[in-house]
Amino acid sequence: MNATKRIGQLRRRLASQSLAGLLVTHLPDVRYLCGFTGSNAALAVTRRAARLFTDGRYTAQAAEEVSRSGAPVKVEIVPSGASTAAMQWLAAQPGVSESQCGIDSSHTSVSEFERLKAALPGKIRRKLLRAEASLVEPLRWIKDEDEIAIMAKAAALGDALFHHLLGFIQPGLTETAVAAELEYQARLRGAEGMSFDSIVAAGPRSALPHGRASHAKLPKRGLLTLDFGVILRGYCSDMTRTVCLGKPTPREREVYEAVLAAEQAGIAAVQAGVTCGAVDEASRSILRSVGMAEAFTHSTGHGVGLEIHESPRVGSGQHDKLAAGMVVTIEPGAYFAGEFGVRIEDMVAVTRTGGQLLTHSPKALIEL
Amino acid sequence: MNATKRIGQLRRRLASQSLAGLLVTHLPDVRYLCGFTGSNAALAVTRRAARLFTDGRYTAQAAEEVSRSGAPVKVEIVPSGASTAAMQWLAAQPGVSESQCGIDSSHTSVSEFERLKAALPGKIRRKLLRAEASLVEPLRWIKDEDEIAIMAKAAALGDALFHHLLGFIQPGLTETAVAAELEYQARLRGAEGMSFDSIVAAGPRSALPHGRASHAKLPKRGLLTLDFGVILRGYCSDMTRTVCLGKPTPREREVYEAVLAAEQAGIAAVQAGVTCGAVDEASRSILRSVGMAEAFTHSTGHGVGLEIHESPRVGSGQHDKLAAGMVVTIEPGAYFAGEFGVRIEDMVAVTRTGGQLLTHSPKALIEL
Repeated sequence: MNATKRIGQLRRRLASQSLAGLLVTHLPDVRYLCGFTGSNAALAVTRRAARLFTDGRYTAQAAEEVSRSGAPVKVEIVPSGASTAAMQWLAAQPGVSESQCGIDSSHTSVSEFERLKAALPGKIRRKLLRAEASLVEPLRWIKDEDEIAIMAKAAALGDALFHHLLGFIQPGLTETAVAAELEYQARLRGAEGMSFDSIVAAGPRSALPHGRASHAKLPKRGLLTLDFGVILRGYCSDMTRTVCLGKPTPREREVYEAVLAAEQAGIAAVQAGVTCGAVDEASRSILRSVGMAEAFTHSTGHGVGLEIHESPRVGSGQHDKLAAGMVVTIEPGAYFAGEFGVRIEDMVAVTRTGGQLLTHSPKALIEL
Repeated sequence: MNATKRIGQLRRRLASQSLAGLLVTHLPDVRYLCGFTGSNAALAVTRRAARLFTDGRYTAQAAEEVSRSGAPVKVEIVPSGASTAAMQWLAAQPGVSESQCGIDSSHTSVSEFERLKAALPGKIRRKLLRAEASLVEPLRWIKDEDEIAIMAKAAALGDALFHHLLGFIQPGLTETAVAAELEYQARLRGAEGMSFDSIVAAGPRSALPHGRASHAKLPKRGLLTLDFGVILRGYCSDMTRTVCLGKPTPREREVYEAVLAAEQAGIAAVQAGVTCGAVDEASRSILRSVGMAEAFTHSTGHGVGLEIHESPRVGSGQHDKLAAGMVVTIEPGAYFAGEFGVRIEDMVAVTRTGGQLLTHSPKALIEL
């Protein structure tokens, strides 16, 4: 990772916002800027210096990870209150107390903001801190080549796991046993973890868009939705396939083909400069045209990266425009409560001329 | 779960705080009060009514889970903005607009708080909302009999997994392969997931208190720390054992015995009415007396329940008192960078007369 470049970009944003410094407390942002992966961290950045605060559990790890990232960041271990210590360090930097420092309004709680203010000397307490929309997240939306390469590997691991499951799945297994096999193989093949609770939802449970694996057994006949992702070097993959145990009914096949057409239309609409709302509409209009508008109960997709859900939201009416380097999911679905559901999802990297698929698993309806 | 009782307790707290209503957005709190386990939810509670807001992905699941919990809560599906919808519903309830409603200051971001205020009619915008420390979390600190029973089962599953690993671990395996086996067996035996990223740290990596499983191979000789937990019906378990591959050195054995004595002293100090600081000191003083004070770089323990880290913090100087029904971890450790580390951890339910161990794995130093 090019941590020096990232911190340089952040400093240009500080300057453009007339901020003397920034307190970064959202952990994926900290990792993005200096490589540290611990569970407690506050990174203080001024236009000239930067310091990471964490606690004694991470003394060795913080030194190693920050050094490996190449980030121009010193590490300081504090017994507790990393964000307060970072705030006080910021306020004590040359020139800072006459200016303003930003905190991340989306990831700082109301009570934490009060605590930070209370930890500052009275005379600068009121004017120093300014709640700001994150300045780091917009940097993260645009992935560089290294990040796209890692995400392509994560997506490829997802594909390999799906292929493995096709040979493993059989009626009578519990959904949980399928999830166990999936997660076991993911670990053995190098995943640091799963991006989210794996969704394995069979028969009528496939109508639950977020049907986490349960103790229900796979039926002899019916649809089965698999939605999962792996984490590789911090980056999340995300994919969904719906397969059929036994022969699909004509209605199941009809819905499957409609969702597949919607998904392909969404992918075809991806291109730098296009609004997220237009991509959503490309998928949604297909389902609307076959009378399934109400069965598609969620957005078409979302950004993905160090977090499983990032901006932009690919949803109805969203004005945000796609830009080259973003990675989004395209995942329309149709759900019929008590009957069945279908969802198909790929990860797509946005380029100037279109979308580059990162997931490559087959999408013709598979009968097992 | 006795959702009706829990919501009744919450309403008494509302009355005592002179609040007409409360917006509950922290997901473990929502689950605690009405059983809903989805990833997007806002629960609005007044002294007479309660309503859960979520989105269309969860239509079937929310109805089913809330109904099963027995909570006196209606479900409303909204396309997006569940917390805003919940806030607007709250403000429209009879008598509420003349009074005040609470939001959870620890789990509401600065920007979310601004959004909520902006969604209210101008004339009540300023006075209606009051940021409050969570009113739900203190209810959750004290577990009822059902919760203790679930947590005992989760702890017992952790014990069984540790026992299984003792037969699985051998030099040459990667730490990741051990974590994979652990998590696979956990799933097969009914866990919904792991409480946190499993820690499998061998040799010098055992000196990293949070050494997540890496691709490093288990050495023929050296200490190995296993720190993991499973989730059962939403509740987390947490345990740590340090074992030895081959024969321990005299120094390793000396540190092990010191940490074990500190852990046992901590457990012996647990009792309703005792301060968390006193429990921490019981453990810490043992390590201090053998010159290992600086090697013990973290708190002695923490509350555990629907979240892996809950209040109280069992740390130095903490004045919070233990109360019957709390479940805490006791987990002192000693770490020597570049050499090795030892940590031993159990889960303890607080009773009026002492502490009841929920984890039961052996603690004499095991040589593999």
